[in-house]
Amino acid sequence: MKIAVLPGDGIGPEITEQAMRVLTALAGDGLSVEMETAPVGGAGYDSAGDPLPEATLRLCEQADGILFGAVGGPKYDTLPRAKRPEQGLLRLRKHFDLFANLRPAIVYPELAHASTLKDEVVAGLDLLILRELTGDIYFGQPRGVRTNENGEREGFDTMRYTEGEIRRIARLAFETARKRQRRVCSVDKANVLETTQFWRDVVTDAHQEFRDVELTHMYVDNAAMQLVRNPKQFDVIVTGNMFGDILSDEASMLTGSIGMLPSASLNARNFGMYEPIHGSAPDIAGKDVANPLATILSAAMLLRHSLGQEAAAQRVEGAVRKVLAQGFRTADIAEPGKRTVGTREMGDAVLAAL
Amino acid sequence: MKIAVLPGDGIGPEITEQAMRVLTALAGDGLSVEMETAPVGGAGYDSAGDPLPEATLRLCEQADGILFGAVGGPKYDTLPRAKRPEQGLLRLRKHFDLFANLRPAIVYPELAHASTLKDEVVAGLDLLILRELTGDIYFGQPRGVRTNENGEREGFDTMRYTEGEIRRIARLAFETARKRQRRVCSVDKANVLETTQFWRDVVTDAHQEFRDVELTHMYVDNAAMQLVRNPKQFDVIVTGNMFGDILSDEASMLTGSIGMLPSASLNARNFGMYEPIHGSAPDIAGKDVANPLATILSAAMLLRHSLGQEAAAQRVEGAVRKVLAQGFRTADIAEPGKRTVGTREMGDAVLAAL
Ligand SMILES: CC(C)[C@H](C(=O)O)[C@@H](O)C(=O)O
Ligand SMILES: CC(C)[C@H](C(=O)O)[C@@H](O)C(=O)O
Repeated sequence: MKIAVLPGDGIGPEITEQAMRVLTALAGDGLSVEMETAPVGGAGYDSAGDPLPEATLRLCEQADGILFGAVGGPKYDTLPRAKRPEQGLLRLRKHFDLFANLRPAIVYPELAHASTLKDEVVAGLDLLILRELTGDIYFGQPRGVRTNENGEREGFDTMRYTEGEIRRIARLAFETARKRQRRVCSVDKANVLETTQFWRDVVTDAHQEFRDVELTHMYVDNAAMQLVRNPKQFDVIVTGNMFGDILSDEASMLTGSIGMLPSASLNARNFGMYEPIHGSAPDIAGKDVANPLATILSAAMLLRHSLGQEAAAQRVEGAVRKVLAQGFRTADIAEPGKRTVGTREMGDAVLAAL
Repeated sequence: MKIAVLPGDGIGPEITEQAMRVLTALAGDGLSVEMETAPVGGAGYDSAGDPLPEATLRLCEQADGILFGAVGGPKYDTLPRAKRPEQGLLRLRKHFDLFANLRPAIVYPELAHASTLKDEVVAGLDLLILRELTGDIYFGQPRGVRTNENGEREGFDTMRYTEGEIRRIARLAFETARKRQRRVCSVDKANVLETTQFWRDVVTDAHQEFRDVELTHMYVDNAAMQLVRNPKQFDVIVTGNMFGDILSDEASMLTGSIGMLPSASLNARNFGMYEPIHGSAPDIAGKDVANPLATILSAAMLLRHSLGQEAAAQRVEGAVRKVLAQGFRTADIAEPGKRTVGTREMGDAVLAAL
């Protein structure tokens, strides 16, 4: 099995390196994974003038899954939009039709203190945000800056969702909830936006086939509040690309352990791209202080969802829980009385725990 | 001076009643305010078949300011969109060009414990969200549900902002910040949306005239995180209608005292509509348990911004702080050892404190 590893920028290379060590260590188990790296984002621009170089895309096409680090950095901020690092990400999502973004927001008991929310509000939190990733105002046409009918300049974008796009993500939400607490909350702004009234109608219709799953609807402004007020009320939240971008970041920050959270972006064939939800953190890049655990957990998701290696995935997740229990902490989750280690040493600890 | 009072639905009538008592009590001070009520929202639909009856709109046009309760309730949820309660709100905003929505998120020291966030994270929080209220995807055309070029049904909406719309809210943000800590954070999604790249460009340009104010830019997903991570980093946040809807609700929930937060929606002539940020809470309507303080504080904002009565505004705000210090609490902010009172009794307490 072949994995394309795209380290990207900032801390991307050092965190993906630890995940690759973990995948290599699993090889003993009769699991043979071949890994090849290629530049993306700012690194793609630097090496080939393109945030998604042709060779990188070809490598991904030949792979069974993609492990992605992080992209972006101040030196790329002034580039024209098409050359900017995040375009590499957006183009990969679109090219492989990775419509389903799974973002778990889990509070590890050992790390609950790190949340800015009170312990009782977040202890035991286990919420999954399912964000649609290839539609919505992210890709809708027309868009641009124009002179309007009154001779004034204006910026404009188009939000749109087709029935098919909504139905497939809704189905996946219900299927996913069946393996959890069987509760789906669909988030929209149906009181204002036509697209999301349509979203609500299609989700409600798709629910007919999943009567054993509870479906509720919530406006996005209320959802942003409820995540702060009582996040444990949710099991699976399903929403569009734009609202999902905002709510999933809010939800991950609730946990206090953003350096711990992986994500998966899947298409209908279970091909996927796996990445930590945190960013490229240029300020600490190359200093061996970044937390590699979110990337290692992303590799576990890759094993599970794209390679069908559930046992190997659980071994990796078990090893991560063990190093936390052993008291290993990177700087972002440091705690008095626990052992603060660097990126590589955390990788060592996970390897030892495997 | 004349105030149009639109109680609306749910708890709207009982909370606006207390605010009216407070305004009447100020009359002694040589301040003469005439108040007249009219139905809006569901009440408008019930009485005139329209969430914004013609007579209500005429009353507002003759007034110097509007005091608004809250709208909505389950019995109106199945009405066609044009008849739904929130349309009364949206049409009032558009009709009076109330482009500037001021939403303070303040933590009252007496109520800090009510927040789900840790005390040290929110104690002393004093943040102002300035939300643009008459543009963006809320009103952009075209919008609807159509059959697209592939023969599939799709919902669509248009996000748009003109240069003039952005410039006037940006200017107001800088002017407002001058009376506070002189820091403005403009929130957008410039890495993805053309409208908001344009927003960022115009805000940056408008900043030329306000060099004494610090301007930063933040992506909306990061802002949703930073509000949870460290809300005290912000002074004034300025953003568009859609992002402002989400972030201002998130921010108000951080405070733990959503029953305490007023808001103002102003046009260029300082005519405005004032309302509590909480909703119509149909479940507790008519039970004399709702917290009237956010509405009373909204009346104070009306005195300040639309009637130019700063001293009277401060008297009302002082009275509210006093009743909190005296230990009066409605059920939403109840606390062991403090006196839990009903809506009317809380009104009495404020009147006594005036
Ligand atoms: C970098 C950016 C384009 C991206 C997005 O908005 O989707 C990021 O915020 C994310 O959530 O993966
Ligand atoms: C009721 C609704 C239309 C409204 C909005 O989205 O603006 C409300 O959420 C608000 O923030 O005042």
